[in-house]
Amino acid sequence: MARQDGRMNDELRNITLTKNFLTHPAGSVLIDQGGTRVICAVSLEQGVPPWMRAQNVPGGWVTCEYGLLPASTHQRCQREASKGKQGGRTMEIQRLIGRSFRSVIDLSKLGANTLHIDCDVIDANGGTRCASITGTSVALVLALRKMVAQGILPEIPMRENVAAVSVGILKNECILDLCYEEDSAAEVDMNIVMTESGKFVEIQGTAEEQPFSHDDLEKLLSYAKKGLDKIFALQREVLAQ
Amino acid sequence: MARQDGRMNDELRNITLTKNFLTHPAGSVLIDQGGTRVICAVSLEQGVPPWMRAQNVPGGWVTCEYGLLPASTHQRCQREASKGKQGGRTMEIQRLIGRSFRSVIDLSKLGANTLHIDCDVIDANGGTRCASITGTSVALVLALRKMVAQGILPEIPMRENVAAVSVGILKNECILDLCYEEDSAAEVDMNIVMTESGKFVEIQGTAEEQPFSHDDLEKLLSYAKKGLDKIFALQREVLAQ
Amino acid sequence: MARQDGRMNDELRNITLTKNFLTHPAGSVLIDQGGTRVICAVSLEQGVPPWMRAQNVPGGWVTCEYGLLPASTHQRCQREASKGKQGGRTMEIQRLIGRSFRSVIDLSKLGANTLHIDCDVIDANGGTRCASITGTSVALVLALRKMVAQGILPEIPMRENVAAVSVGILKNECILDLCYEEDSAAEVDMNIVMTESGKFVEIQGTAEEQPFSHDDLEKLLSYAKKGLDKIFALQREVLAQ
Amino acid sequence: MARQDGRMNDELRNITLTKNFLTHPAGSVLIDQGGTRVICAVSLEQGVPPWMRAQNVPGGWVTCEYGLLPASTHQRCQREASKGKQGGRTMEIQRLIGRSFRSVIDLSKLGANTLHIDCDVIDANGGTRCASITGTSVALVLALRKMVAQGILPEIPMRENVAAVSVGILKNECILDLCYEEDSAAEVDMNIVMTESGKFVEIQGTAEEQPFSHDDLEKLLSYAKKGLDKIFALQREVLAQ
Amino acid sequence: MARQDGRMNDELRNITLTKNFLTHPAGSVLIDQGGTRVICAVSLEQGVPPWMRAQNVPGGWVTCEYGLLPASTHQRCQREASKGKQGGRTMEIQRLIGRSFRSVIDLSKLGANTLHIDCDVIDANGGTRCASITGTSVALVLALRKMVAQGILPEIPMRENVAAVSVGILKNECILDLCYEEDSAAEVDMNIVMTESGKFVEIQGTAEEQPFSHDDLEKLLSYAKKGLDKIFALQREVLAQ
Amino acid sequence: MARQDGRMNDELRNITLTKNFLTHPAGSVLIDQGGTRVICAVSLEQGVPPWMRAQNVPGGWVTCEYGLLPASTHQRCQREASKGKQGGRTMEIQRLIGRSFRSVIDLSKLGANTLHIDCDVIDANGGTRCASITGTSVALVLALRKMVAQGILPEIPMRENVAAVSVGILKNECILDLCYEEDSAAEVDMNIVMTESGKFVEIQGTAEEQPFSHDDLEKLLSYAKKGLDKIFALQREVLAQ
Repeated sequence: MARQDGRMNDELRNITLTKNFLTHPAGSVLIDQGGTRVICAVSLEQGVPPWMRAQNVPGGWVTCEYGLLPASTHQRCQREASKGKQGGRTMEIQRLIGRSFRSVIDLSKLGANTLHIDCDVIDANGGTRCASITGTSVALVLALRKMVAQGILPEIPMRENVAAVSVGILKNECILDLCYEEDSAAEVDMNIVMTESGKFVEIQGTAEEQPFSHDDLEKLLSYAKKGLDKIFALQREVLAQ
Repeated sequence: MARQDGRMNDELRNITLTKNFLTHPAGSVLIDQGGTRVICAVSLEQGVPPWMRAQNVPGGWVTCEYGLLPASTHQRCQREASKGKQGGRTMEIQRLIGRSFRSVIDLSKLGANTLHIDCDVIDANGGTRCASITGTSVALVLALRKMVAQGILPEIPMRENVAAVSVGILKNECILDLCYEEDSAAEVDMNIVMTESGKFVEIQGTAEEQPFSHDDLEKLLSYAKKGLDKIFALQREVLAQ
Repeated sequence: MARQDGRMNDELRNITLTKNFLTHPAGSVLIDQGGTRVICAVSLEQGVPPWMRAQNVPGGWVTCEYGLLPASTHQRCQREASKGKQGGRTMEIQRLIGRSFRSVIDLSKLGANTLHIDCDVIDANGGTRCASITGTSVALVLALRKMVAQGILPEIPMRENVAAVSVGILKNECILDLCYEEDSAAEVDMNIVMTESGKFVEIQGTAEEQPFSHDDLEKLLSYAKKGLDKIFALQREVLAQ
Repeated sequence: MARQDGRMNDELRNITLTKNFLTHPAGSVLIDQGGTRVICAVSLEQGVPPWMRAQNVPGGWVTCEYGLLPASTHQRCQREASKGKQGGRTMEIQRLIGRSFRSVIDLSKLGANTLHIDCDVIDANGGTRCASITGTSVALVLALRKMVAQGILPEIPMRENVAAVSVGILKNECILDLCYEEDSAAEVDMNIVMTESGKFVEIQGTAEEQPFSHDDLEKLLSYAKKGLDKIFALQREVLAQ
Repeated sequence: MARQDGRMNDELRNITLTKNFLTHPAGSVLIDQGGTRVICAVSLEQGVPPWMRAQNVPGGWVTCEYGLLPASTHQRCQREASKGKQGGRTMEIQRLIGRSFRSVIDLSKLGANTLHIDCDVIDANGGTRCASITGTSVALVLALRKMVAQGILPEIPMRENVAAVSVGILKNECILDLCYEEDSAAEVDMNIVMTESGKFVEIQGTAEEQPFSHDDLEKLLSYAKKGLDKIFALQREVLAQ
Repeated sequence: MARQDGRMNDELRNITLTKNFLTHPAGSVLIDQGGTRVICAVSLEQGVPPWMRAQNVPGGWVTCEYGLLPASTHQRCQREASKGKQGGRTMEIQRLIGRSFRSVIDLSKLGANTLHIDCDVIDANGGTRCASITGTSVALVLALRKMVAQGILPEIPMRENVAAVSVGILKNECILDLCYEEDSAAEVDMNIVMTESGKFVEIQGTAEEQPFSHDDLEKLLSYAKKGLDKIFALQREVLAQ
């Protein structure tokens, strides 16, 4: 049965990736996934965080910050800078993104440098954390290519691309790549982060309304795999241009 | 192959649940799981949060706060009250716990009441979030029984018990219920929250070091299921006393 | 004598205004002024701030928040949401923008509504506060037109367009519309906010390096007037499309 | 005349001290004084606070933090970590405890180490600050003994034990060791911190409701002395085991 | 033996009280006690704090805030407004001052009003909390007289004047009214708050360096009594002018 | 036409400058301008801010903090230290004051020292930022003279005096040096900071109610010049005593 926007249950929304969307950072991408638009930027900073220096950990670091522009949401959301703190959801998401990329980047080959990932959502229509990861993977490659070209790094220390997609259960049906209305009403919400070679980086599944079975889980994972294969193809295509 | 502490890979640590550990809250439990000790308390507050009043959402609310005593960790950790904010890890954990119980409690049958869950770790030896969930499930039943006895509620609005356990991959082997040293060195770390009837409430799997395969996932889930069956039996026994 | 980028001293940079850049807010504009890009959004919220309710002030309110994306600047700047507070520069700018529009909007004709202006800089190349004002004026008209179309307002309560431009003294020469390099090195930095009818809304002139004379002031004001006349023409053109 | 709980006016509540209650810190004690239960922990950290380094103050430092678990009080109290700051009462108490022990420890003999005292109340029934001091004195001796055994210190730099007890005036009668109900209703509330040799470390007396006379003061001090003699005997006994 | 500034051990510093030092508040006093200068202001606000409204506590409230101007201290101290929080010492002092006056004002006769006491130290030379209390007592009478004159209150609800003085032990000698140098070096530091009728409102004695005996306490209290008698006489004289 | 307080439109209020009002800072002045009273203090601190050290900027620094005592305003204002942050108005003002003096002090001749300016308003009756600047200019000269006398500086590195005054438009008339009631009702509010030699340091003009013309601007500037000439004469006189 088709969804409200006409998609099949295992169908992705349209995705476009605009490279070098910003002027200053080492790499940047604007991702548009079905109306969810996120600016993903990667900035290079010399030096590593204080805790690494204190513990003499060799190599570099990769970290992420995430934010919603106040006008990006259906109802305007409060600006975290004026509230004076980042909310729990923001922290969860930026920790997820940072972790995801640290699992595919060889930090020991980064030199004593920090890569700052900034994911700023300018239009939110569901799946912002997944779109952030998909866009950031491309922005990171752009930044690392530049660092190699400038002689800062001898080679690109990122083993493979990473992408993410949401799956969920809505009215007892498994669906792929939820838009905002679907996400708000779903009984189960799951985000899958994978590497291009088909391994899991993160699985986060939540029963918002009612617990789900092992069979449900298998079906959700197969939908995610199908969607991610298409997303990895798109990333490769964009990076090849 | 046995582990450092002599356990088999699919073997739980010893667990004890001490009911009514505190004097004042409606329900409380001290859980000790292999040296990880958490005080789980459930307090009743009349009224619901402002956002529910503002939106005229009927029923009640269940929320959680989590904390580590500074001296609970191997190296003393900084007190969040004196730092002036809760860290991202704390927020992630308390959001997870609150969500887990909202999925099995019928909020519409709670009346205009809020149940505050407080999980305070007094000794940390790995798996604090899972132990918090396992202990809280019992504390909630104790609190809800008291509310029924006092005539505040006509019946217990919690559909079934909830428990959680960690699984992970260490040196390429799947293991159940990681202690601190195992958790620190694991390549993959996963927390599974289930209901007594065998359904998933939350799955959170993270490849700290290297991505994992679908086969790994299946094995981890089967270990978790085995451990959780024993934990549910223990909860039932304690609640029957 | 021409400037580094080839402009005459009294010449503006190229300006483009993209209407309805965002999906959700009542009005939005992306302004690009010589590489400085700002998303200007206007969101409608029912109700007025607590201080107006407490004092029974009739009518509505217009307020502004401003921010720099971390990757918008030459060197990545720290995210104010993670610092936990907005800096003095941010507060100065958002207060300036809010005041500027309250001086041309008849608040008594807004009903008990609040218009939230959000100016978020995605690329910074000098003159971000002026570009924010110029873009916001158009976004406000778009938002107010929509409110009239929806019957929320009987007529547009904004008396005329507002725009802003920077002028300054660099190496003893007066110049119009400073880019980042010029702004960083200027001896005098001035921002002029005007109405379409040629009156001043704000004058903010600062001698960063050395005090300036009355003759300097007159020349700076004439440059600003020349630039603003062109900007007002552009605003009219975009709003007429 | 006997009190509500049957005690004479100059009678203490039952006190038990459980040594080594926690796993990780250098010393720890659980004190239970009439239902008030406090975990007192002493952790060793190498190095001294920045202000000591900056001023080249030789020796070490002793500092304290105090907290109430949210579920420790009759009505659940708000978690200070989520409020984002410690309240005035908390600061007063932790400053008092730190000061009390700095008066009997020879900081110059501590080496460049910091002793962190953490007093966390898990059940509150009046007199939490006094119980914290009594319990901490034992925990400090345990920690210092361990430091001597490990060769970190040549000898124990603490001159004598310290203990504290509350006295007060309720319905015009002087009483010793107030429980929560007595404390809430008392006209005068006083906390006495003494050394084992019978000298004052702190006297803090407050007329909550009505000022008190010099004769009242003398009687309160004699009650405190009587109670403290018993508490010092208990400390000695526990430390001798 | 005379002190560094020539005073006898039981001798006060010179004290002057300037009434109505500020323009706007209901009552104000500048107290100068040996170079310690504090502006004490009492402002009337209609209404009571939220916790009183929530609990339907009848009557009014008296509260205090205390601050040091940054340039008031020997070394400039950091401004608490820019640090973003009040320190523990500030909180202790303002809580002490508020409590002291609530013990002599019949809150039930204040109407639903709040009296805000603000004690701002402009020059610090020891004894700022005591000078704040002595000055505030006069400012409160001035404010309450004005409220009676304006018909806000039928009569003055303050039972008697309050004053405070410091005593201490320096080089084994008891001394009255410590200046900054004496305070910095004292072994024992005590603040005594009394009512004009000779009763104690607060006793706060601290052994900074070494514990003190009961005989020491008696001598310190007699010195305080002697000084306070003179201070009460001065308050009466100033209020009679 | 004369104003409410009898002044002509281009007439200043009475100004007095009390030198060395405080005991501890290097220089201090109490300025009273028509009932607006501000304590201006200049404190010397060895060393420069972290950002200067990090960038190896030679020379020293001048910075300012500004505050209102809570009882200084017509209605008591909330203490920023207890609110936990400085408001936007405070930040604007202290940034303005710091900038103004950095434009006339040769920072390269200050040595590696920081001059902290603290402007604390004890009575507010309009024009507090201008009075702060006028008073601070004198306090700075006093502080710098002392530094020269102590051999810290070879000569005074401040090129000339600075002063400020407000002008505005009220009921369509230009007026000089607005008191509180005038300031609250003015259509246009402008602050002019000048050097003794007649050059502009800052111009900040705001149309609170309705935009203003170029002719208005010229008249306002001429009134400001007239007032400032008198203020510079007063500064010279006070500094010559």
